[in-house]
Amino acid sequence: MSRLNNVILDQLFNHTSIRHFQNKALTADQVTTLVEAAQHASTSTFSQQYSIVSVTDPAVKQQLAEITGHHWLVNSGHYFVMVADQYRNLQIAQANNADPYILHTTDKFLASVFDVAVATQTILIAAESMGLGGTIMGSILNDSKRVIELLDLPELTFPLLGLAIGYPADKPEIKPRMPQPAMHFDGSYKLPADFNAQLADYNQTVSDYYGSRSSNGRDESFSHHIVAELGRGHDVRKELLQTIRDQGFLVN
Amino acid sequence: MSRLNNVILDQLFNHTSIRHFQNKALTADQVTTLVEAAQHASTSTFSQQYSIVSVTDPAVKQQLAEITGHHWLVNSGHYFVMVADQYRNLQIAQANNADPYILHTTDKFLASVFDVAVATQTILIAAESMGLGGTIMGSILNDSKRVIELLDLPELTFPLLGLAIGYPADKPEIKPRMPQPAMHFDGSYKLPADFNAQLADYNQTVSDYYGSRSSNGRDESFSHHIVAELGRGHDVRKELLQTIRDQGFLVN
Repeated sequence: MSRLNNVILDQLFNHTSIRHFQNKALTADQVTTLVEAAQHASTSTFSQQYSIVSVTDPAVKQQLAEITGHHWLVNSGHYFVMVADQYRNLQIAQANNADPYILHTTDKFLASVFDVAVATQTILIAAESMGLGGTIMGSILNDSKRVIELLDLPELTFPLLGLAIGYPADKPEIKPRMPQPAMHFDGSYKLPADFNAQLADYNQTVSDYYGSRSSNGRDESFSHHIVAELGRGHDVRKELLQTIRDQGFLVN
Repeated sequence: MSRLNNVILDQLFNHTSIRHFQNKALTADQVTTLVEAAQHASTSTFSQQYSIVSVTDPAVKQQLAEITGHHWLVNSGHYFVMVADQYRNLQIAQANNADPYILHTTDKFLASVFDVAVATQTILIAAESMGLGGTIMGSILNDSKRVIELLDLPELTFPLLGLAIGYPADKPEIKPRMPQPAMHFDGSYKLPADFNAQLADYNQTVSDYYGSRSSNGRDESFSHHIVAELGRGHDVRKELLQTIRDQGFLVN
């Protein structure tokens, strides 16, 4: 089987996360365009259950750098925080004397997470089409309570992802991905019979990639990487579930 | 401020969900290309925490049509179920005698939800670039237990989104979105002082859209739509949180 091509697919196949930026802020037109691209993406039941906070204050960016541990974010050309948002629809419920119960459910929280992630990826794709690049940052979850305070987030909202966008200062090599037979199944979930062999091949491919990388080279297979992730310890983000609940979500 | 343009932005701005399909299946090359586009998207901590199940058996598609209530899905050219997956990484943990605890946490469940939604949106954008269209379907959550059984999903996996892709049989008009000032904030979360007036304008715009739509016209503002959503009742998907827990997620 062979891969098809067009200008959009070419961009998608060549995606890499950008963490080194030129010292150049995005224009207001660029930011408006990115947000508008996000808005035109699908939202769950067309309920538009997310909001975006642009962080431009250097002091707040510095605090986000500390929370995430990713100090390079302060050099991005624009920083978005992508927020799950049922609060705006709560205002509509209250104005219409409607029972807001389901806004508090797991179902609606998940809908908001979908909306946030779809919008985030859409902004990143839009940015890449404009010669920009960036990184989606789950690391704002390291201290959700502090992010909630920093951005003054009300009940029924939650800061899920950061998104650093800017003019790329480097061009990282494309990281090799898992072989398709190990992640795409026909009809039912079934790892291939030779999964261990496929994983061993893939581990070698990833090790070769890191070993030959022009910068930040290291000896690490995919399995090493997953085992290192698991070693982060039981206490990492252990407040996350409670903080989501404290914001009014997951009542059932 | 004005919106920028290029071929990719044009596609993003013109997105509409497609629910009417020509009777034409996708080729294996098309499916491989879509999955490869998804694979090249970002995943949380590069841990590739999702899998894709392609549903081709007509009997299974029929059951998904019943679960979702969206019978048009049986006419799609290809149907994907997008699955949160920490099970594959659990195999890596076990093979390396690593403590798998964090795979069970809320943090890792959220990472999987991000990975699924980012991959899903990437497939949809890739499909649109190939002259295809589709709809992301949260409605498979109507009966998660049954979807888990249908697709034989193991522990630490969860079916989050369906994705119907095919050759469009119609060209729906673009639905108007919330004004940016009501969903994009600078520095901190703050609905605009004139939010009620902006919402009233937007409600009128949405009503006009539905009223003038060439098919499936109706009289419905955005507020009406949200109130109707809220009226679905307390029992809708009330098993969802427990089913996610039963799959081994959200231990803390």
